[in-house]
Amino acid sequence: MAETNALPLVLLTEQFAKLPGIGMKSAQRLAYHVMRMSDKDAEAFANAVLNVHKNVHLCKECQNYTDRHLCPICDDDRRDHGVICVVESPQDITAIERTGEYKGVYHVLHGLISPINGVSPDDLKIKELLARINSGTADEVIMATNPTVEGDATAFYISKLLKPLGVKVTRLAFGLPIGGQLEYADEITLYKALENRSEI
Amino acid sequence: MAETNALPLVLLTEQFAKLPGIGMKSAQRLAYHVMRMSDKDAEAFANAVLNVHKNVHLCKECQNYTDRHLCPICDDDRRDHGVICVVESPQDITAIERTGEYKGVYHVLHGLISPINGVSPDDLKIKELLARINSGTADEVIMATNPTVEGDATAFYISKLLKPLGVKVTRLAFGLPIGGQLEYADEITLYKALENRSEI
Repeated sequence: MAETNALPLVLLTEQFAKLPGIGMKSAQRLAYHVMRMSDKDAEAFANAVLNVHKNVHLCKECQNYTDRHLCPICDDDRRDHGVICVVESPQDITAIERTGEYKGVYHVLHGLISPINGVSPDDLKIKELLARINSGTADEVIMATNPTVEGDATAFYISKLLKPLGVKVTRLAFGLPIGGQLEYADEITLYKALENRSEI
Repeated sequence: MAETNALPLVLLTEQFAKLPGIGMKSAQRLAYHVMRMSDKDAEAFANAVLNVHKNVHLCKECQNYTDRHLCPICDDDRRDHGVICVVESPQDITAIERTGEYKGVYHVLHGLISPINGVSPDDLKIKELLARINSGTADEVIMATNPTVEGDATAFYISKLLKPLGVKVTRLAFGLPIGGQLEYADEITLYKALENRSEI
């Protein structure tokens, strides 16, 4: 293959194949697509890649990606700065914002504690979270990490650090997903749904 | 969404979403992945995009993409320049080369005749094919366009132009795919397999 294809195309294919969820076949299709773009469109694409590295950094307050000093959520006086929702990644913020229900602010950890992958608490934005709590505006922290072993462990670790600071720490509710079917629910989800049942 | 995400990230997401087979969700995941790359890796990615436009052009002979004057196949004296395999796209060459059986050269049309999509014969590299035949080295042209309405029509159209030039024109064989099952074959494939049966 490398012998008959033009080297720049092979190199671009390799670049695409490094991206998550893209195999060699898709990568080749994408490389050929870029080849067929106009010069102007290819330049716009390359510039978009460079611009996220040039102009995007972490919000000083919540550690989400932003191109301003403070991200639009931290900079918004109508949001409730007394409630901080702690998430693993910026994508989780997008998901929660889609509900349209949450009016507080966020804190992005940029990962979860995972000894197996060599991620220790020091690699996450936990110090920054403690500093925010110590500065004193928040009275509730919602742990919204994923309901996985690592997500639970991270939530537990952080809650142990936060409680002595006198802040209320809560965790997202776990149970049956809306629209799901009992017979297809796994045992742990069903157990959680039973355990956390509420009166109607 | 656009309100809470950094603009450069939104722009990069839009760029990824323009690529074939990539929806908004995947595009966002890819944009965040690029954000997490090192500056050096992001630059390498952007340069790979720009380089295909700067350094890759069409082979003067077969119209495949190449970064040299002639592509490695046209430039190879060990290939049989008497047989030209006509394909729709450069990817088809990669597929045929994988068989390791074909020793001739290629000609890339860069599309198929398709009145519905406004693609006329003039938009394809047919003139270049006729010029190659007229220059006189080829004695067989294999029409290897896809077995679709447009692929068949294009093969038929080109064969009508080539026959008066005294060149042998052939078409790929159609029939049951190896490893396939009769009961799942569609009617047309099965009809072709019956029609083109051979003695054993």
